[in-house]
Amino acid sequence: MGLSAKEISQHSDRQSCWVIVRGNVFDVTEFLPEHPGGEKIILKYAGRDATAAFDPVHPPDTLDKYLDKSKHLGPVADMEAVAAADKNRKKTPEEEAEAAEETRIAEARKNMPPVDSCYNLLDFEAVARRIMKKGAWAYYSSAADDEISLRENRAAFQRVWFRPRILIDVERVDLSTRMFGARVSAPFYVTATALGKLGHPDGETCLTKAAARHQVVQMIPTLASCSFDEIMDAAEGPGNPYQWLQLYVNKDREITRKIIQHAEARGCRALFITVDAPQLGRREKDMRAKEAALGDGGSSVQKSEGLKSDNSQGAARAISSFIDPSLCWDDLPWFRSVTRLPIILKGVQRAEDVVRAAETGLVDGVVLSNHGGRQLDFARSSLEVLAETMPALRARGLDRRIEVYVDGGLRRATDILKALCLGAKGVGIGRPFLYAMSAYGVDGVDRAMSLLKDELEMDMRLLGARTIDDLGPELVDTRSLGSHPNGVPDDYLARDVYDPLQTPAQRNAKL
Amino acid sequence: MGLSAKEISQHSDRQSCWVIVRGNVFDVTEFLPEHPGGEKIILKYAGRDATAAFDPVHPPDTLDKYLDKSKHLGPVADMEAVAAADKNRKKTPEEEAEAAEETRIAEARKNMPPVDSCYNLLDFEAVARRIMKKGAWAYYSSAADDEISLRENRAAFQRVWFRPRILIDVERVDLSTRMFGARVSAPFYVTATALGKLGHPDGETCLTKAAARHQVVQMIPTLASCSFDEIMDAAEGPGNPYQWLQLYVNKDREITRKIIQHAEARGCRALFITVDAPQLGRREKDMRAKEAALGDGGSSVQKSEGLKSDNSQGAARAISSFIDPSLCWDDLPWFRSVTRLPIILKGVQRAEDVVRAAETGLVDGVVLSNHGGRQLDFARSSLEVLAETMPALRARGLDRRIEVYVDGGLRRATDILKALCLGAKGVGIGRPFLYAMSAYGVDGVDRAMSLLKDELEMDMRLLGARTIDDLGPELVDTRSLGSHPNGVPDDYLARDVYDPLQTPAQRNAKL
Amino acid sequence: MGLSAKEISQHSDRQSCWVIVRGNVFDVTEFLPEHPGGEKIILKYAGRDATAAFDPVHPPDTLDKYLDKSKHLGPVADMEAVAAADKNRKKTPEEEAEAAEETRIAEARKNMPPVDSCYNLLDFEAVARRIMKKGAWAYYSSAADDEISLRENRAAFQRVWFRPRILIDVERVDLSTRMFGARVSAPFYVTATALGKLGHPDGETCLTKAAARHQVVQMIPTLASCSFDEIMDAAEGPGNPYQWLQLYVNKDREITRKIIQHAEARGCRALFITVDAPQLGRREKDMRAKEAALGDGGSSVQKSEGLKSDNSQGAARAISSFIDPSLCWDDLPWFRSVTRLPIILKGVQRAEDVVRAAETGLVDGVVLSNHGGRQLDFARSSLEVLAETMPALRARGLDRRIEVYVDGGLRRATDILKALCLGAKGVGIGRPFLYAMSAYGVDGVDRAMSLLKDELEMDMRLLGARTIDDLGPELVDTRSLGSHPNGVPDDYLARDVYDPLQTPAQRNAKL
Amino acid sequence: MGLSAKEISQHSDRQSCWVIVRGNVFDVTEFLPEHPGGEKIILKYAGRDATAAFDPVHPPDTLDKYLDKSKHLGPVADMEAVAAADKNRKKTPEEEAEAAEETRIAEARKNMPPVDSCYNLLDFEAVARRIMKKGAWAYYSSAADDEISLRENRAAFQRVWFRPRILIDVERVDLSTRMFGARVSAPFYVTATALGKLGHPDGETCLTKAAARHQVVQMIPTLASCSFDEIMDAAEGPGNPYQWLQLYVNKDREITRKIIQHAEARGCRALFITVDAPQLGRREKDMRAKEAALGDGGSSVQKSEGLKSDNSQGAARAISSFIDPSLCWDDLPWFRSVTRLPIILKGVQRAEDVVRAAETGLVDGVVLSNHGGRQLDFARSSLEVLAETMPALRARGLDRRIEVYVDGGLRRATDILKALCLGAKGVGIGRPFLYAMSAYGVDGVDRAMSLLKDELEMDMRLLGARTIDDLGPELVDTRSLGSHPNGVPDDYLARDVYDPLQTPAQRNAKL
Repeated sequence: MGLSAKEISQHSDRQSCWVIVRGNVFDVTEFLPEHPGGEKIILKYAGRDATAAFDPVHPPDTLDKYLDKSKHLGPVADMEAVAAADKNRKKTPEEEAEAAEETRIAEARKNMPPVDSCYNLLDFEAVARRIMKKGAWAYYSSAADDEISLRENRAAFQRVWFRPRILIDVERVDLSTRMFGARVSAPFYVTATALGKLGHPDGETCLTKAAARHQVVQMIPTLASCSFDEIMDAAEGPGNPYQWLQLYVNKDREITRKIIQHAEARGCRALFITVDAPQLGRREKDMRAKEAALGDGGSSVQKSEGLKSDNSQGAARAISSFIDPSLCWDDLPWFRSVTRLPIILKGVQRAEDVVRAAETGLVDGVVLSNHGGRQLDFARSSLEVLAETMPALRARGLDRRIEVYVDGGLRRATDILKALCLGAKGVGIGRPFLYAMSAYGVDGVDRAMSLLKDELEMDMRLLGARTIDDLGPELVDTRSLGSHPNGVPDDYLARDVYDPLQTPAQRNAKL
Repeated sequence: MGLSAKEISQHSDRQSCWVIVRGNVFDVTEFLPEHPGGEKIILKYAGRDATAAFDPVHPPDTLDKYLDKSKHLGPVADMEAVAAADKNRKKTPEEEAEAAEETRIAEARKNMPPVDSCYNLLDFEAVARRIMKKGAWAYYSSAADDEISLRENRAAFQRVWFRPRILIDVERVDLSTRMFGARVSAPFYVTATALGKLGHPDGETCLTKAAARHQVVQMIPTLASCSFDEIMDAAEGPGNPYQWLQLYVNKDREITRKIIQHAEARGCRALFITVDAPQLGRREKDMRAKEAALGDGGSSVQKSEGLKSDNSQGAARAISSFIDPSLCWDDLPWFRSVTRLPIILKGVQRAEDVVRAAETGLVDGVVLSNHGGRQLDFARSSLEVLAETMPALRARGLDRRIEVYVDGGLRRATDILKALCLGAKGVGIGRPFLYAMSAYGVDGVDRAMSLLKDELEMDMRLLGARTIDDLGPELVDTRSLGSHPNGVPDDYLARDVYDPLQTPAQRNAKL
Repeated sequence: MGLSAKEISQHSDRQSCWVIVRGNVFDVTEFLPEHPGGEKIILKYAGRDATAAFDPVHPPDTLDKYLDKSKHLGPVADMEAVAAADKNRKKTPEEEAEAAEETRIAEARKNMPPVDSCYNLLDFEAVARRIMKKGAWAYYSSAADDEISLRENRAAFQRVWFRPRILIDVERVDLSTRMFGARVSAPFYVTATALGKLGHPDGETCLTKAAARHQVVQMIPTLASCSFDEIMDAAEGPGNPYQWLQLYVNKDREITRKIIQHAEARGCRALFITVDAPQLGRREKDMRAKEAALGDGGSSVQKSEGLKSDNSQGAARAISSFIDPSLCWDDLPWFRSVTRLPIILKGVQRAEDVVRAAETGLVDGVVLSNHGGRQLDFARSSLEVLAETMPALRARGLDRRIEVYVDGGLRRATDILKALCLGAKGVGIGRPFLYAMSAYGVDGVDRAMSLLKDELEMDMRLLGARTIDDLGPELVDTRSLGSHPNGVPDDYLARDVYDPLQTPAQRNAKL
Repeated sequence: MGLSAKEISQHSDRQSCWVIVRGNVFDVTEFLPEHPGGEKIILKYAGRDATAAFDPVHPPDTLDKYLDKSKHLGPVADMEAVAAADKNRKKTPEEEAEAAEETRIAEARKNMPPVDSCYNLLDFEAVARRIMKKGAWAYYSSAADDEISLRENRAAFQRVWFRPRILIDVERVDLSTRMFGARVSAPFYVTATALGKLGHPDGETCLTKAAARHQVVQMIPTLASCSFDEIMDAAEGPGNPYQWLQLYVNKDREITRKIIQHAEARGCRALFITVDAPQLGRREKDMRAKEAALGDGGSSVQKSEGLKSDNSQGAARAISSFIDPSLCWDDLPWFRSVTRLPIILKGVQRAEDVVRAAETGLVDGVVLSNHGGRQLDFARSSLEVLAETMPALRARGLDRRIEVYVDGGLRRATDILKALCLGAKGVGIGRPFLYAMSAYGVDGVDRAMSLLKDELEMDMRLLGARTIDDLGPELVDTRSLGSHPNGVPDDYLARDVYDPLQTPAQRNAKL
């Protein structure tokens, strides 16, 4: 039995709004104003099948969790009729643009270079940019305001130089290390990033599988496209120790407690509490992509409410639905009381707060991070914060009491080694693995990790370091790290009249 | 009755020069050499209707104030004949170019993005640049010499980085603050800028209305296109406290006294005396726009006299007509004697002068400003002056005796927060609101202010600050602020022969 | 009578080489290997009329001075026959290219903007670049090696910022100052530059006349195209005090003595001995222009001898013919003995040498200069040397014993004021006046000087300085002057994959 | 007699793989997995004539040395049949691309500027880039990772400025100096670079002959295309003292001993042990060129093994075949025991290691080098290491006990002089001579050396230095050398909306 396509199609506006997801009908009329991603995107699919838009941005258990059972109206009787109606429907300009984009992407995918043509992490990014949907690309690649912290994250690594040791026997090099007691094959981990299915239909499980193959840790995000359990299931082997949990703290601490305890029960090894996101940042590239093609479903969880008259209230509501902006130091004992997992603060941005975290005695680690430049623009790079943090910890004898990690902007093994020389225990890598996944799935992530390890082994050898423990501050020159002046703004008049020297080849070309 | 079109048209040269403004005839023959904007622009309209060129650059009461009543010759008898004659007249190349520009602009306006597509203040600027007349754009956007201070104003903010606090309860964030005792909803104000009607027919009243809606202060400029009273009238509500007066000091102190006392009587809350403009700066982009199309009336009040033989005298006269270059410290007691308003010096550029101002006991505040880069090129940014000023004040216990404001180059809430962290009480924003107004009128300014507030709320949350008072120097890293070296000039030969790495996507594109 | 065209034309090779200059025939066979500009350029005109190529690069008295009278063969009998033969001669490709260039330039000159369209010194340069012969442009604009000092000269000024004073009565501003006792109307002078006729047929006298009109000093170059006396004659008024002499010291001190004493007799007021050019620098742009079109005669005095087997000898000879590379400190007393003029060392590049010069008691001034970047690349800018020099002089109480001047890279009044604030007595300006002269002759130079004075008056007013004596180090911020780091070299891979934010206007343009 | 083309052609796969080199047949079936350059490149020529690909990348004695005699199958009977078969064979796309490239290059060579048109070392590079095979260019020009050290090598020299002395008698300038006791005509030498035949069919002997003409030293590379003896033979004159030996240390010390003692016997004057290459770096431009056209044979000795499952083992094997990654300080006495030559460590990168080397008493010199940026990216420039090294040596009284050389990034005489001022005994120049050789053979290298000497003589004169000993730290300003900050990342939004000033010429062009 079930509901007919015809009946469903009559519930297609704000007064009564039904949508189909995976063959079932849901009444979301009352939910419309609650939707963190705004009602527009739901209304676009009112009375129709929303599965293709729904899936990449919601874990499979979303409707069970967030929509009252009374609104689950049951199965569709005739999906063929639904599909036929959809096919005959006149397309909007946005839908036509979407179809054109799909054609473009299919073409681009045909001409994609083989995965073996990627020689470094930036190569995956260059490929992904061409074969991803614009909205998905915008969601992954965007950052706050003018994206200056985003780029500074990368630039900061380039202000640190090496002082390699020579004549060390580096025949055998060992990349392995320990993170919160667990042995890992290399000093990097897959950090938490949201909405994996925007890049690849298998979502975060691509990362899971590659990480398992390489024996490196994956941090599971709260905002994954796959459900937590799907990801845990994808980890190969029953006792696989290589998962951590990233947590956005819900105002309803009961929900938070359940999430933590479930993760602990499933074998997660550490709890990373995000502390740099009391509100999710404005990312204009993402907002513009959504505007240009409403319906791509891009990044609905982080939709800006624009500037409606009830703006502050609207934003506050969107936030309060899953992130608690009142989270503070006083909450830490509660976390300690509900889990035996190591507790790590993710998103610390100044030495004072690391010291304070260590002094609480409740915290096992910190991740110095500015959230990939996606939160507060002009937040400093994690590398610069690290350089200020380790001396502060050492001066207080706290450097052994807390493990310090960094993320943001790492693309090369040299970046990893710089962070380790400066005292980081390990580094998180996010976007590069997403791009590898988006372009080539598990194989892409696998190759990306292999490339990183290959670079690491080579670079440790060239640096004169046999083990991770051999890395220390004497191997780097950080004199320029703290300085990032602008040049004087361009003198356009003088630049225009200046007549540059030319090589014979240049002049030859002109004759 | 009145004067006939034919008669008027016979007074069309330097010997006898009549012009029509809003249906009335004026004999400006003797006034020609006195016109601050030069006689050329008047002679262009000799014997004709000058209203369209006159209006954007002169307040409505200009002719009453500055032209002797005996030269007000009375109404035109037949405006239709005037219009018809004008229509049949052979156009000059400049007028034809002007007409072509109007066509271009009309087309550009049709394709303008909706105001909701502007996500930040720079977006308005990008739109305004396309839909404004070239001369108007040049007047607003130009600055002194090579426009290096103009760009440095922006660049300086980008040499300051944040050190955000984590785990602060930021559920409620309060943007409001006090300026000279008055409560405002946000720590920015609309600073004084000239000739608003160049951008929008309603002129400065667009800013007035948006500021009133948002409960922020507008500083009324001496050189407004609207008259002072028009602006005051546009402020919604009779007791609206949100206006300040910006003052160019006239050599004739009686005129100055009247302006001040009238403003005080109308409810203005503070008096900002401009001290960085004993002479108005040379702005070459503006001068060139005027040369290219004499007749756009662009920025007549700031016309350079070129380099005629009597250059110094000519410039001196132009200046002496409305700005007194001899204004000095000894004049301050007189200002104190004529008004009870707070007195603020606008355009201070070194710590020593702020200290001196505070020590006089006559001054309630200063605005650190280089006049938007429009006066002395290579004047430092206000942010850099601020960083030198606050410690100097604190060292002398003067920091509570004087309120310090900054303006110039602010485009993002992060810029505002940096200034506030460094000790500013508030910040002035000028051009961005002009561009928003030029493109979208009141709605544009309204949205620009909403965007700023939206960014401010978000960024304070991410910075871990609940109120304006929570902002302090410990939240910023200013190590690079004072340094603005050039890089080494380009090595063109080496740059030309260097063969950069390419990504797979780049190489693919070439096959 | 005289020599026939036919006979002359038979002396057209290395064995016997006659040339015609201004209707007279000269036998230069034996002189060929002595010619500082190489023999090729002479052989090109062997047996023909060389006047057009000879004139711009040789003062009129050259042949009298340097070619033995026995080689002056007397007048040409039939110049018409010479001209006719030349016309019928088959042109070489270089000559055809030269003719094409002349056509291009004639066209460009037709479209030149009027002189009043130049609003600053860079504007003249932009015009000159389009209307000058390529070889002449190359000679004027080129500098040593990679032209890094050339551009650094300009860049250094942009590392100094102003700290203007407010509330100073600047109604009257006085630009005049004294240089070696003589009153001048402004703190700049025309510095010595070679081969003025490459830019304008009237050569250096254009500069002379404009300088006289403006009551500023002209420094007369040893390598002028006009003769010394032509220049002195061009100075208006018999007692005009505004000339100095720049001197390349000849190995034959008798020649040098005569030059100095003649200049003194004619009323020159100071003697500037060039000390940064024991050998004239290699300027590749100039060398390439000459290679491309041998025959333009460009900069024959500074021709590189290429790399013939007898290279060192050849270069040494070229140099020894007019510059003595052995000039040293021990020579100073001799100069003091032959003249009562103030003696100034031009081209000093380190504080130690200024101190030493002052301590000799024989020297009245120095010009800190790197010869416009034309000698040693990576020589520092004069401004940076000045900042190191004045404190060194003051520490030894020598700052009143010697006048310090700077040149190189100045284009704006702000540059002049920065140098004066740092202690310079005046500044030399070279290329900008050459460009103004090349484009517009005397009127161009006149306007360039007017523009500079206009800027100076305005900027002093804005700086809060009434007289040159009011300028001091407290008005500038030089913290960045001494630092000129490179940025990290570009990261091409990351730069390629980065996807920049776009404004609405940019995105609109793409739809 | 001999083997028939037909029979040979049947051994064309992994099961049985024969190749022809210079008319002889070799069975390389068992050698395939041992080949440092991978088996693919050999299999491409299986059953065919491999001479053209083999020659540029293998010294002539390679097969004798590395392939067991039993695999030398003897001469080909009918080379004509081999050639005919090859001609008729269907070409692969890569081979067709290769043929097209050869056509392009032949065309480019026709339009090459004459060698006299090269005025500096960068000019040769510009020409070489156009006339070299892509693969060869990639091998020479590529460097590690993002090639940042490669470019930093050049940039570092541009952070050092000169402080020239004036009034020194520089009529005679002497460029000669001593290196390890031997008199050389100039303070530079040809450093070791691999695979000279990629650039020119005569390979490294071009360098040898030019160096001999100029009386400068050539360092003979282990990885030369020519055999060691061919190079020694090419040095003109029997007792020519101008060769050094660069050594990659083989795991089999017996091989190493023989190489050293043979070199000593042939008259080499010093032994340079490479210490910065326990593993050869990854150079992506090179890897990509190889991928694009497998078969060019580019840089087989440095082939990355990609990321096969047995990656680490594979790489280890490739390395162990000719470079010993276990080489360490303890090995130095052995070297001292097998030769009386001066021993120099090449590739030292920190002051501590120079001090340690000097303190061993076993080492006569060091070369500060990052291997032309080809090993560890972000290794510092040799100039920066030099500036840290010399004070450290002087502080310990070791500066006379060890000679310090630098290489990497030098292109101008000014670069050489900067290094010498900072304490280097001499400098190595690599790529520039390779480019000169690739474009013009011996004559190119000869001219490159002449140009350098010409610049050196001029620049010493301008610096006020008569001899190499006159050069010292007082002649340079190194304040900026140690700082290489990034600027703030670009603000793309602001950059897009900024409207630059325009010169009259620019505006004119638009009308």
